[in-house]
Amino acid sequence: MPRLAYLGPEGTFTEEALRLLDPAAERLPCANVSAALNAARTGDADGAVVPLENSIEGAITTTLDEFAWGEPLLITAELLLPVQFSLLARPDTEIAHVKRVYTHPAAITQCRAFISRELPDAVVVAAPSTAAAAQEVSLPGSPYDAAIAARIAGEHYGLVELASDIGDRSDTVTRFVRVGRPQPLPAPTGSDRTTLVVFLADDHPGALLEMLTEFSVRGVNLTRIESRPTGDGIGRYFFHFDFEGHIADARVGEAIAGLHRVCGEVRFLGSYPRADGVTTQIRRGTSDDAFGEAAEWLARVRAGQV
Amino acid sequence: MPRLAYLGPEGTFTEEALRLLDPAAERLPCANVSAALNAARTGDADGAVVPLENSIEGAITTTLDEFAWGEPLLITAELLLPVQFSLLARPDTEIAHVKRVYTHPAAITQCRAFISRELPDAVVVAAPSTAAAAQEVSLPGSPYDAAIAARIAGEHYGLVELASDIGDRSDTVTRFVRVGRPQPLPAPTGSDRTTLVVFLADDHPGALLEMLTEFSVRGVNLTRIESRPTGDGIGRYFFHFDFEGHIADARVGEAIAGLHRVCGEVRFLGSYPRADGVTTQIRRGTSDDAFGEAAEWLARVRAGQV
Amino acid sequence: MPRLAYLGPEGTFTEEALRLLDPAAERLPCANVSAALNAARTGDADGAVVPLENSIEGAITTTLDEFAWGEPLLITAELLLPVQFSLLARPDTEIAHVKRVYTHPAAITQCRAFISRELPDAVVVAAPSTAAAAQEVSLPGSPYDAAIAARIAGEHYGLVELASDIGDRSDTVTRFVRVGRPQPLPAPTGSDRTTLVVFLADDHPGALLEMLTEFSVRGVNLTRIESRPTGDGIGRYFFHFDFEGHIADARVGEAIAGLHRVCGEVRFLGSYPRADGVTTQIRRGTSDDAFGEAAEWLARVRAGQV
Amino acid sequence: MPRLAYLGPEGTFTEEALRLLDPAAERLPCANVSAALNAARTGDADGAVVPLENSIEGAITTTLDEFAWGEPLLITAELLLPVQFSLLARPDTEIAHVKRVYTHPAAITQCRAFISRELPDAVVVAAPSTAAAAQEVSLPGSPYDAAIAARIAGEHYGLVELASDIGDRSDTVTRFVRVGRPQPLPAPTGSDRTTLVVFLADDHPGALLEMLTEFSVRGVNLTRIESRPTGDGIGRYFFHFDFEGHIADARVGEAIAGLHRVCGEVRFLGSYPRADGVTTQIRRGTSDDAFGEAAEWLARVRAGQV
Repeated sequence: MPRLAYLGPEGTFTEEALRLLDPAAERLPCANVSAALNAARTGDADGAVVPLENSIEGAITTTLDEFAWGEPLLITAELLLPVQFSLLARPDTEIAHVKRVYTHPAAITQCRAFISRELPDAVVVAAPSTAAAAQEVSLPGSPYDAAIAARIAGEHYGLVELASDIGDRSDTVTRFVRVGRPQPLPAPTGSDRTTLVVFLADDHPGALLEMLTEFSVRGVNLTRIESRPTGDGIGRYFFHFDFEGHIADARVGEAIAGLHRVCGEVRFLGSYPRADGVTTQIRRGTSDDAFGEAAEWLARVRAGQV
Repeated sequence: MPRLAYLGPEGTFTEEALRLLDPAAERLPCANVSAALNAARTGDADGAVVPLENSIEGAITTTLDEFAWGEPLLITAELLLPVQFSLLARPDTEIAHVKRVYTHPAAITQCRAFISRELPDAVVVAAPSTAAAAQEVSLPGSPYDAAIAARIAGEHYGLVELASDIGDRSDTVTRFVRVGRPQPLPAPTGSDRTTLVVFLADDHPGALLEMLTEFSVRGVNLTRIESRPTGDGIGRYFFHFDFEGHIADARVGEAIAGLHRVCGEVRFLGSYPRADGVTTQIRRGTSDDAFGEAAEWLARVRAGQV
Repeated sequence: MPRLAYLGPEGTFTEEALRLLDPAAERLPCANVSAALNAARTGDADGAVVPLENSIEGAITTTLDEFAWGEPLLITAELLLPVQFSLLARPDTEIAHVKRVYTHPAAITQCRAFISRELPDAVVVAAPSTAAAAQEVSLPGSPYDAAIAARIAGEHYGLVELASDIGDRSDTVTRFVRVGRPQPLPAPTGSDRTTLVVFLADDHPGALLEMLTEFSVRGVNLTRIESRPTGDGIGRYFFHFDFEGHIADARVGEAIAGLHRVCGEVRFLGSYPRADGVTTQIRRGTSDDAFGEAAEWLARVRAGQV
Repeated sequence: MPRLAYLGPEGTFTEEALRLLDPAAERLPCANVSAALNAARTGDADGAVVPLENSIEGAITTTLDEFAWGEPLLITAELLLPVQFSLLARPDTEIAHVKRVYTHPAAITQCRAFISRELPDAVVVAAPSTAAAAQEVSLPGSPYDAAIAARIAGEHYGLVELASDIGDRSDTVTRFVRVGRPQPLPAPTGSDRTTLVVFLADDHPGALLEMLTEFSVRGVNLTRIESRPTGDGIGRYFFHFDFEGHIADARVGEAIAGLHRVCGEVRFLGSYPRADGVTTQIRRGTSDDAFGEAAEWLARVRAGQV
């Protein structure tokens, strides 16, 4: 039974993601993303589950930077979790009496309309996580009347649900990934995603276009690009890429090797099944068969057998 | 005397940026970036100063999203501000007695080495801004012993500096921009930057490559790209671009018009002098003169005068 | 009634093309392509009809080089002429007695199978044109028994047709163009072609890719590219391009102006209706309306009206 | 001692090229390029020497088409031969008496200024080759007074040189290649050229741009591109490419394999030392070492060793 670290405390959306990714795993809550990843790195845990991006908030930059700069880890699975917020309070609280609300800033942003409409006079205070807010509210002497958090957090901390699905959009999704220490990769499935970090050797005009061309010329479709500062001053960035396919695919391997040749440093973060199950469309001439046939042809031609 | 809104309270790095951008301006502190921008939009202020990105933390996503989704504003100036953190406390506090520190999470990240080395046993608590942390520490009954903030915040709230320049890197820089309601643009200087937001008409493989080609074919160099979620689900993004040159430049105007034609929506955020004063290098055949000469030639040729 | 020069003598395929392009024109046969074009340049004729390329033989390099180096001319029309060869002889000649055949080398190439099969023992001699061959054969004392030429040449010179449509392929086509001195261009029809000559400013790796990108980024499709030597040594070339659309089209104008800016010299050879009548497919965002709307938007944005 | 076929008769520029390429070879003159190549194909000769392009006239299309459509041959060497024309006549002929000149049409083009200036009243008649013209003029009863041909032809046929180096340009060069049946390739030298023929799988807008990108993304520089008709109608072409490097080079092999995958058919025509001895400049990240290192890295990463 693997032991997986996650962004705690119990009741976070990340815990929910972990339960869905591996129901049988032992769960090790950690104070923040870095701590969860470090638990996986040191062996305190067999792996970790962390959020990577949210369909409203965007990238979780702590996760991106940990993946880029920390000891190497490999992504082995991803999960898309619809994020539904509930207004949670101690039993017997009435919504009319909620004057002080505690929650994570991302939840404040995503529940703005509900707060304006239903809690126009309430003070809303920022908490380090939605589950921490629920935990705080569950304490008898808490100065807060309610928390905005996942329903699971309410169940965990003995709170009741005053209102459910209170986000401005009902289709908010967070993407979580499971990571582990370097290990054999999940086998290709035909519906895979690969994640990379790329540092430029020298930052020159057109460098990004060159990187994208390494993908496009081999029929590899990008699904996400993020730039992050290298720390060496404004205007210096490195890049996170997600794209379709598995590094075991010939076209993907050649594209990544191409980036490795022309860029400063490429860090491979994993190839793993897509959570949405979408099958990779393979452009003419870029299948493994096409690569294999071309390699045989090239060998013959190099031997002068034209 | 213009009145400029900014991310307050008094003593923030943003206030320092505002003072440098416009020493004579009246200053209107606001609770957060959105409030400062709204003050500019509604006319409560004549403009606003907000942070756009930091050389360690990356983009300030609130600013990016406000620029993309809120009522249009125009960037009219930028400033690069070295960010130096100080450890600030009430008079008579000794560093050996600092057990509880209050500051913004970004400062925690950026001062990690100092904290580990000098304050190994201290509890560090997250504050909404560095200046708010200084303000809180200045209160007689504060539960916190020290704040990490800008020196200016210490001066403002009557704190003393226990240690200065405590960031892990001494070259951390934040980029601030001054914005205002739609207005005539600053004149081109030969050392300008332009900022855009681009939404894709339809998200297809190669869309990003196409956008970059609109720039590169006309010799326009990108200096920053950020992707942000559209809110329509994981995998749907829009883009922020900074690039060299002024929209009044022929090559820049043609590139932006090209994006406007082939993308779903382009929002122009401004052309303004670069804070670093770097002169734009103009590739052969892309100067205003070259465009003007080509337009005259085209007119003659279209009239059959070959 | 215009007077048009052409590659003579009477009976050439070019004469046939001229008759189809302008049945009412007065016809001025010339000894070669250069002479025909010079007649148009000097005013001896109002224009000229010359072959540009053949679906088997490829480009007529004399025509290409005259267009590139000679006094400027404008193409105003094109014609695709199926080329059918006949075996022509003086009356009373039997095919079994044909021992010496006279024709243009291109016709030898294109009738190779017929000659091997039907005239295995004949000597085939090269003539300057197919019509000249027919003319020669028509002379009473000619050393040749038959000519391979257009049927029209046989009619003209009083020859009989021993065999018709004797080409290896029945779908051979030659493309002819009508040219004149610089003049107002034919109006756009929605099914137009444009022809250019481009000389490189400096020959560097990627120069051709850059030229093609000027077309592709604006949705202009190439239909023909030819390289020709500049005369400055092996490895130095200039280029002939045909592409879809009319220089009056906004996307075409911008692409040509772009080439003019970044290349050494661009010579415009004309925009004219396509002989095949194929309507130009216009990619999203590249119609004249899209360009007009983008120009208006750009003007507003440059005025700060965002 | 190898036996090499060439475009005869004795005294052609091709014979001169052959002597320079392989002084010891037995020489087999042939009536035309096709016959010379066929002699190599059938084994009548061990190889052939044929012209490929001329710095004034451009491509020798017969050679290009034979390479593309005929039984496969491999280019094993190239030679650049300065082409100098002489006016040759039977002994005792004076230039003032030259009224009828016989030569190849290419020579007429290239000696136009000399002919206008020195032989304004002469009739110039087209011959199948310059050497054939010299041979004809050497016959006692020849109707021609002089030939324009290589000096070597004059020596061979007993003619005297009335004028030498009479071309309009003194730097005209013809590129010859030596070909043979399929065989082991010449070893890479660091100054190599590779020649290919590429047929498109389906002719779509952007197909040429895609082909060029296969080269450029791997740092392979084109030195020549020629389009030739496929014979399937106007607007359908295939392409000849020359580019820097040897198919044994990793970057060249990968580029050619890429073309093989995405195009209809690629015919490899050979990798051989450049006649001009120019060393191939290798762009960062495209050396064999860079490819080898990237392949090792990829293998490790695919095994999960990040």
